[in-house]
Amino acid sequence: MVGVGIDAIEIHTGKLCLDLGETFAPEMGDDPDKYRKGLGLYTSSFPDSYEDIVTMGANAAHRLMKRTGRTPADIGRIDVATESAFDNSKPVSTYIAGCLEQVFETTFHHANKGERKFACIAGTQSLDDAYNWIRAGRHRGRSALVIATDTALYARGDAGEATQGAGAVAMLISEDPSLVELSPEQGYGSADETDFLKPNQQFPSVDGKRSVQVYLSRMREALQDYESVAGDTHPDDFAFIPFHTPFPGMVRKAGLLGYRHVIRDTGVEEELAAEIGRQPRPEAFDDDQTYLDAVSEYTDALKETTRYQEWYEQVIEPTLNISRYVGNWYTGSVHVARASALKHALEQDRELTGDRLLVASYGSGAQAEIHTETVQDGWKEEIAAFDIDEHLDARHDITFEEYERIHDIHNHDIKSEDVEEFTTPSDEFVFDGWGRMGERKYKFV
Amino acid sequence: MVGVGIDAIEIHTGKLCLDLGETFAPEMGDDPDKYRKGLGLYTSSFPDSYEDIVTMGANAAHRLMKRTGRTPADIGRIDVATESAFDNSKPVSTYIAGCLEQVFETTFHHANKGERKFACIAGTQSLDDAYNWIRAGRHRGRSALVIATDTALYARGDAGEATQGAGAVAMLISEDPSLVELSPEQGYGSADETDFLKPNQQFPSVDGKRSVQVYLSRMREALQDYESVAGDTHPDDFAFIPFHTPFPGMVRKAGLLGYRHVIRDTGVEEELAAEIGRQPRPEAFDDDQTYLDAVSEYTDALKETTRYQEWYEQVIEPTLNISRYVGNWYTGSVHVARASALKHALEQDRELTGDRLLVASYGSGAQAEIHTETVQDGWKEEIAAFDIDEHLDARHDITFEEYERIHDIHNHDIKSEDVEEFTTPSDEFVFDGWGRMGERKYKFV
Repeated sequence: MVGVGIDAIEIHTGKLCLDLGETFAPEMGDDPDKYRKGLGLYTSSFPDSYEDIVTMGANAAHRLMKRTGRTPADIGRIDVATESAFDNSKPVSTYIAGCLEQVFETTFHHANKGERKFACIAGTQSLDDAYNWIRAGRHRGRSALVIATDTALYARGDAGEATQGAGAVAMLISEDPSLVELSPEQGYGSADETDFLKPNQQFPSVDGKRSVQVYLSRMREALQDYESVAGDTHPDDFAFIPFHTPFPGMVRKAGLLGYRHVIRDTGVEEELAAEIGRQPRPEAFDDDQTYLDAVSEYTDALKETTRYQEWYEQVIEPTLNISRYVGNWYTGSVHVARASALKHALEQDRELTGDRLLVASYGSGAQAEIHTETVQDGWKEEIAAFDIDEHLDARHDITFEEYERIHDIHNHDIKSEDVEEFTTPSDEFVFDGWGRMGERKYKFV
Repeated sequence: MVGVGIDAIEIHTGKLCLDLGETFAPEMGDDPDKYRKGLGLYTSSFPDSYEDIVTMGANAAHRLMKRTGRTPADIGRIDVATESAFDNSKPVSTYIAGCLEQVFETTFHHANKGERKFACIAGTQSLDDAYNWIRAGRHRGRSALVIATDTALYARGDAGEATQGAGAVAMLISEDPSLVELSPEQGYGSADETDFLKPNQQFPSVDGKRSVQVYLSRMREALQDYESVAGDTHPDDFAFIPFHTPFPGMVRKAGLLGYRHVIRDTGVEEELAAEIGRQPRPEAFDDDQTYLDAVSEYTDALKETTRYQEWYEQVIEPTLNISRYVGNWYTGSVHVARASALKHALEQDRELTGDRLLVASYGSGAQAEIHTETVQDGWKEEIAAFDIDEHLDARHDITFEEYERIHDIHNHDIKSEDVEEFTTPSDEFVFDGWGRMGERKYKFV
């Protein structure tokens, strides 16, 4: 059976940069370490006045298609995942296809275009749909274009304000892919939760504490479900574990709990027993609270072990390198984490072909999905083509006052007249005003 | 290869009924025939004050699962298609799963829940995703629940006001289905169009004339694309052709143009030649306008032939029986058309097993999709279980003043205090007010 997975990937960052420690923290009256160490974030990406989810997605897709020599005839499906849509009927994928048709000579008229919404997990859901479409044999030899694009803004003053970000990830899903092959096995953990939502509003209502708990609970369920079909996992099975990364601090928690779960009943637990004891088992306790306290104590001790710290440094930490400088991109976030890890491996000159990744996606509301991926032998060439550092370095640093202005410009409730640009667009798609029916228009400059 | 398709289907109508000829037309100062003959609509369904896309979808799904003896463990995927969502992040499927978990003893915690948006075509896209998921072998023997649910309201006074409607269709997608098996072949016609959209607004902006043209153009493209993979179609190939039905008058146009297309170069064209000539071919004309005029003239003549009219009466007309009494349900509409045709066949005591349907879906923005379905030998039992007539008859007739009130109640911009119910809910999910984060809450009464 020929493999199906991600053939190529491109990341487009919003072109403005807010320094959280230098610029944001002083205005909030906070210690910069609240952001740098607590959240694990240094800077965030923001869209310039001419950028939005369409331009970012179209620019990522355009670069992806140009670099891989694809034309519209090679694409049978364009799915956009977003929770920043600006239309309740017309999908973002039609706008992006319209942009791309301005620069290609042919059209996407026979490609199935769609849009998925489920907080931050819809990017992975679209990836899965594309995989299934190819596996079902309906693709006629063509690839799917999956685009995860979001402008992750919070209301000014919201506790989530420091975790904002904006960017798009475009992925080409193909048979016999160059980058990673997806496992047919998947695990889901999913429940009707009210942790983060946007009821008829652009900016989220968030119960931050609840959201952390729900993330961890659904993730554990998803891992158990995955193991029920693919067999038990072991911490040494995976070169990297890219998690959905609302902020790196969240992944620190998830990594630790995940490690505790997967070492249970393995040689790793035995080896660590001399140092920190074995994991508490519920049957050894008279009541839940005593058990949970013991688990908590074990977890704290586990975190301090060299064995865990080395594992974390190798398997999790490299997935966070990009996220620390761009913030949360919602649907794109877990795909940024994967790219970050592979880029790190290339820089370290590691050989990854045949190695496996465990990809842990999450969306509030809430659902976690886990699948694994096997790195393919074209990965080095593909990741070497990546120029994300260049794009990050080229971002325009904004002052706090400029941040306030750009937040207003992207606030749907404020019809901002101030559309001054901070950067000069070139060779890219830009927002070009509204049409007669209220539709957003775009052009290539 | 075991077939995959629709195993069972349930339709839930909004519980209020507006008579277009008797109640709406006089208030508009219109001749009732404008609606009855022009649009082809007699009455529309509206949701009562305690109904919305969640309750309608959950009630359809609940009935479907109860009737077919399914429990949550049998469901591996719940996809909701809607263009009436009330949250920009949390998908409707989580709310519906939350409702169903109130009445089942087990949960959907390992089911993948999602939401698709692309005007009226997302229901079919979700059906296709479910088919692909099963074909990809990722379903672990489980079925998918696909729910198309919409409250198709227009702004008061909008030209589309008479085509409103509200309801949900729930479909169970399984291996070896009882009702219809889907073809692997699909055809798409898709372009970036501005015919109907909802830019940050609940009610659509519509260019009605353009929308009709786009519907027909994209449909022709989709048929050509379908034929490019499945071979030429012939009007006698299909027992029924369910179209997306924004209003029956639209399908009258689509049916005629579709017939003209598929009879080209067939014996039917030859047989009709004596009466109305052969179809104009572009190469026989000096300029486009003369050619188009000739095509238009041929089409008018074709419409008057007995051959066409008999075909239309048999293949298209029965798909419109339910639509005429419920209005447009957006994502559910084409699935109502299929159900309408099968119900008609059962009432006529026709034998359909092994017969094929050509299913022609459409969403503004714009995209058409065509696939075919083969009727399975369980179809009679499945359609006999249908109690749509009962539900339609049980609707509460509303006066024009009541219509105005109910429109306000469902208008997101009006925080209506008047939540008086017109009907008494029983044995169903109802809206139960807002929670602390602005989420909508539901209970079973």
